[in-house]
Amino acid sequence: MTEAEFIDLLRMLPLHSGALGLADDAARLAGQFVVTTDTLVEGVHFLPDDPPGDVAWKLLAVNLSDLAAKGVRPVAVLLNYPLSGDDWDGAFVAGLDAALRTFGITLLGGDTVSLPPGAPRVLTLTAFGEGAGVARSGARAGDGLWVTGTIGRAGLGLAGDPAHRDAYRRPQPRLAEGVALAPLVHSMMDVSDGLLIDAARMAAASGLAVTVELNRVPVAGEPLAAVTAGDDYELLFALPPGAPPPVAAARIGTFAAGGGLTLTEAGHQVPLPDRLGWLHGAA
Amino acid sequence: MTEAEFIDLLRMLPLHSGALGLADDAARLAGQFVVTTDTLVEGVHFLPDDPPGDVAWKLLAVNLSDLAAKGVRPVAVLLNYPLSGDDWDGAFVAGLDAALRTFGITLLGGDTVSLPPGAPRVLTLTAFGEGAGVARSGARAGDGLWVTGTIGRAGLGLAGDPAHRDAYRRPQPRLAEGVALAPLVHSMMDVSDGLLIDAARMAAASGLAVTVELNRVPVAGEPLAAVTAGDDYELLFALPPGAPPPVAAARIGTFAAGGGLTLTEAGHQVPLPDRLGWLHGAA
Repeated sequence: MTEAEFIDLLRMLPLHSGALGLADDAARLAGQFVVTTDTLVEGVHFLPDDPPGDVAWKLLAVNLSDLAAKGVRPVAVLLNYPLSGDDWDGAFVAGLDAALRTFGITLLGGDTVSLPPGAPRVLTLTAFGEGAGVARSGARAGDGLWVTGTIGRAGLGLAGDPAHRDAYRRPQPRLAEGVALAPLVHSMMDVSDGLLIDAARMAAASGLAVTVELNRVPVAGEPLAAVTAGDDYELLFALPPGAPPPVAAARIGTFAAGGGLTLTEAGHQVPLPDRLGWLHGAA
Repeated sequence: MTEAEFIDLLRMLPLHSGALGLADDAARLAGQFVVTTDTLVEGVHFLPDDPPGDVAWKLLAVNLSDLAAKGVRPVAVLLNYPLSGDDWDGAFVAGLDAALRTFGITLLGGDTVSLPPGAPRVLTLTAFGEGAGVARSGARAGDGLWVTGTIGRAGLGLAGDPAHRDAYRRPQPRLAEGVALAPLVHSMMDVSDGLLIDAARMAAASGLAVTVELNRVPVAGEPLAAVTAGDDYELLFALPPGAPPPVAAARIGTFAAGGGLTLTEAGHQVPLPDRLGWLHGAA
């Protein structure tokens, strides 16, 4: 497939009005936005034999998860794509089309390049969500730490467990939950690098200490493995004491004055694991 | 250099207020924007032994040139960067810092990834300019086709001519010219893939024919080589007959009803070269 053929395929996707039919070097966008961007690398973030449609889904979903954590509704994306010249390209666009339609999002623009022969694919997607967004830094002493869903499923999927393969390959960004939580939470982020490291980051950004009660975390598999595995894309949030959240979630800890992360098991402090999660991530 | 060290370096660059100190997964942006994104690939768009500061400059400049062609003022950028782990990273950030300060632009956010060993670097930058922007599709029959600067210098630089090396490695986006021309022109784009192919694209987007008078094009080197070489990043624009433009530019052709590209030399039609320019480019 040539670049012109690829761009013709892209024109059949849902397009943003500011995309100018993908016939220009730039796009138009107006409003108040949260912007996020993530790059996936073949051999690092996905495997060479992963289905292209799953890679398209994951590229979109990891970005949408960042917008879900801000509590904003996604509207449009930019795609930076390395042309393969073979069937991978068409399968990728078909998967992206399905994923965009699933989430009601439009393509705003992008760039297509060729890579040297044999180079691993490097794909970038940038997503725009409408609104001001919840910051990561607003947790207050006394807030509860909550998480949606079950932690550790993607880690089991990555390790080869077929029952959890889709949790790894086709994560579901918690968009509706994010929008519902946004007016109520003091701080929110997604669990992309591991529950423990992400909880520690939220506490640090808020200038607080946080305790995670390991026995309260809904996990799949071994608890310490689950809370240090990444890619779950559940929402982690700080909620003031009182009313429960309007979405299915578990209270797994508490913020307090001070600094650092403490882990407990049935009320007793336990040592932190050597590795709290993954250190890759976004700036 | 680790990712944390790299992000600490990025924090010393001019930051956009919506960057949230690069301590979050997303950034904030509000207003009316033109958005453009370009990816540069090692071994395709730059050479492995090009100085990292020159690569940073070029990555920024090619995006700013797209904004110049829209006549909007650039305000902020996102960077998707593959960490090398060696001196390249620091040299790249120093070059990006200098380039951002030269153009008065801030960093809004981005993503940092690791590549598999030996993989070519793939860098993406997304730039936001303030305003609505001039479209490529607005030329009218009777408009003159104009171009800024001298065409072909980057092509000579790529071919090894030391006198034109900086034209290739450190292109100067025509930002001031773009802003001055925006209220007057019917259509504008930058010459990134070659003068002839870009003129043909402007005519096609506007539903018109265009004639380029080869003898009127200010060129460096052999004229046919110059008008089919890319990477000049001069501005090509459609101006109604009458007043000359407010910037230094040459009138090199005319738009007319119909379609297609015609090339003339001293008033006589000459055959089009087999290749009008480069077919890579942005969606």
